[in-house]
Amino acid sequence: MKTEIIAVGTELLLGQISNTNARFLSEKLAEKGIDVYWHTVVGDNSARVAEAFSMALSRADLIIFSGGLGPTMDDLTKETVADVLGLALQKDEAWENELKDIFARLRRTMTDNNYKQALIPSGSRLLVNEHGTAPGIWLEHVGKIVVLLPGPPRELIPMFTDRVLPQLPVKNGVILSRVLKITGMGESTMEELIADLIASQINPTIAPLAKYAEVHLRLTAKADAREQAVKLLDETEAKLLARLGEAVFARDEETMGDAVASLLLKRNLTIAVAESCTGGLLAHMLTNVSGSSAYFLQGQVVYSNRSKTELLGVQPELIKEYGAVSEEVARAMAENLRRRSSSDLAVAITGVAGPTGGTAEKPVGLVFMAMATADGISCCKFNFFGKRETIKERAAMAALNMLRLYLLDING
Amino acid sequence: MKTEIIAVGTELLLGQISNTNARFLSEKLAEKGIDVYWHTVVGDNSARVAEAFSMALSRADLIIFSGGLGPTMDDLTKETVADVLGLALQKDEAWENELKDIFARLRRTMTDNNYKQALIPSGSRLLVNEHGTAPGIWLEHVGKIVVLLPGPPRELIPMFTDRVLPQLPVKNGVILSRVLKITGMGESTMEELIADLIASQINPTIAPLAKYAEVHLRLTAKADAREQAVKLLDETEAKLLARLGEAVFARDEETMGDAVASLLLKRNLTIAVAESCTGGLLAHMLTNVSGSSAYFLQGQVVYSNRSKTELLGVQPELIKEYGAVSEEVARAMAENLRRRSSSDLAVAITGVAGPTGGTAEKPVGLVFMAMATADGISCCKFNFFGKRETIKERAAMAALNMLRLYLLDING
Repeated sequence: MKTEIIAVGTELLLGQISNTNARFLSEKLAEKGIDVYWHTVVGDNSARVAEAFSMALSRADLIIFSGGLGPTMDDLTKETVADVLGLALQKDEAWENELKDIFARLRRTMTDNNYKQALIPSGSRLLVNEHGTAPGIWLEHVGKIVVLLPGPPRELIPMFTDRVLPQLPVKNGVILSRVLKITGMGESTMEELIADLIASQINPTIAPLAKYAEVHLRLTAKADAREQAVKLLDETEAKLLARLGEAVFARDEETMGDAVASLLLKRNLTIAVAESCTGGLLAHMLTNVSGSSAYFLQGQVVYSNRSKTELLGVQPELIKEYGAVSEEVARAMAENLRRRSSSDLAVAITGVAGPTGGTAEKPVGLVFMAMATADGISCCKFNFFGKRETIKERAAMAALNMLRLYLLDING
Repeated sequence: MKTEIIAVGTELLLGQISNTNARFLSEKLAEKGIDVYWHTVVGDNSARVAEAFSMALSRADLIIFSGGLGPTMDDLTKETVADVLGLALQKDEAWENELKDIFARLRRTMTDNNYKQALIPSGSRLLVNEHGTAPGIWLEHVGKIVVLLPGPPRELIPMFTDRVLPQLPVKNGVILSRVLKITGMGESTMEELIADLIASQINPTIAPLAKYAEVHLRLTAKADAREQAVKLLDETEAKLLARLGEAVFARDEETMGDAVASLLLKRNLTIAVAESCTGGLLAHMLTNVSGSSAYFLQGQVVYSNRSKTELLGVQPELIKEYGAVSEEVARAMAENLRRRSSSDLAVAITGVAGPTGGTAEKPVGLVFMAMATADGISCCKFNFFGKRETIKERAAMAALNMLRLYLLDING
């Protein structure tokens, strides 16, 4: 089944955003063995959307649109597709009622252009949007399948995964990918450890990709059947794990927060965190996981020296002697936090996020993080590199990784 | 000058990477006033590259290829372009010598397929690659400009910036964009307020884009000179501000955190926050701003009922009677936090982030946020919609907006 993905949006042509929807859709289609032959991007212009759609109808069997389904005047994908196919737009009563409900709940007035979102081309099927007001559309027309998806990834991804992918015909042969996520070592160190595997592996291929605080290794296997592809991926993963060990913290969609959360649940341990330079990001990452109230007791963002003293009982003399950014203060923060919160684990971070506040002795990027557990207190010193947000991100990731390694090593 | 960008590479169609080259090229071209009308992606397949190129020749004046210039068999962009235009490939002696030098330096044997990289279509000009072995190509043909660039961004970006962009015809004129950021009203409500402006404005154009917790209005002006474009943008911004008023919280790169930070500094006020469902995100957003220690005193992530009591002194009876997610508890959190932290402003958030934990009475997305100030305590109730992370984001943005509106209204 030849597939074309058409993204509609002038913001793509102005270079304001990347076409990550096409990447996501292509990846999922490849996993199912469906061949994507073309990506096309056009602006919010009816004539050019119509031209791109006509071209796609002439060469593809499956055409997936993203974007242009919102309530505003420059959202014109649905109208143009209906027009090219000569279909009228009809009201979907159920979705109109759903929209009325949403607006009532939000206590917002439903305006005329919102009603437009309940219109679908005649003969098409509405795809429910659980994360927004623009529904998707599934349309079959003279042997072609045409799917319209909303542009925002948080709406497109679940709609495609739950409502489109399961309905697409299955083909023989699959391409399957798996991502291994690595932290605690740089891309080049990692590549040195596995250079021979990257060079010699043909199926699956191994492609490294560096992020800010982690490196991803993408394995891509081709096989006749899913089970064979999985077996190929498993074999290569085993080889990589033998080299990289505990540096691999997660696979695929799993985040570092998820990895730590599942270890905390498995060990039945609770946690509290105290943050200076990460300013709440560590707590945010830990509480992004659904069900985090089972292990996350409390967080403190102790930005000022006074709050370090008042909330965590850090002695002012200690801060005066060693400075707020010091191993001594980090250890005191973690120790006091663990006692005061009655948590099993307490993590404390203090550092210089920059861009201001650095000195020759304590430069921007210097971060101390301490962990207090039933086994005692440990402290690590880091020198991170980058902009303020990058340093916050790297520090929060390193703290989670410290936790993860500790939790992995507890016997059990 | 109508432009089409054609990226060649099966890895793009398999979803292994995003087409970030198209984003980069589009952004740079827009800055120069050159209109990009189409992005196309095709795989490493000669027939489909030829088809895409022919289509582009029929509709665009400037065609930029990325990818498919390497030494391997599936690199066929150059060969296909030459073939479609009926041009022979000729050896570029200087580049062949350069390649020999590179290989000698690397102590590698130069294989036959490496020699292929010194071939260019007759009548074309070679673009030196300082970061790789594949040169770029500049070709003019019956009034069209065709540019071939290597795929790796580290090679493409400098080649385009240094060797292509300066040679592109300076269109008289510039395209300048400005983004106004709006929150506290939905995309459709906003559009109703300014529908006539969106419809009637031709220069600058006004394009709305909905994000999760904010809406962006992008104004794009075309003019002969920069000053004229700025004047056009200023005039339209003034019209929009007259309609949208305080709902506009920032411009361009400025974030909601920046907007609140500059108001806190201007008013010389300090702040403390207590978060339940947002789990640290509000503190994170406030501390993303450099220099935030001047106003941010402390944050508390009070996830458990016990921490609400122990850290903020919320009476257990209050939680028992009204529930942790209630106006009463939000108000008590804010009031106690302000007193305990000695901050000028205290904001408290309690809610159900989901996906679990919702009830008929207190559904997922229900959030109370209270603000304690010298003027008293106020509390707002919200019903947010979306996934866990979206609800966290919307709640944190709403809290910052509540703060911003309060700070704006203080006389001064």
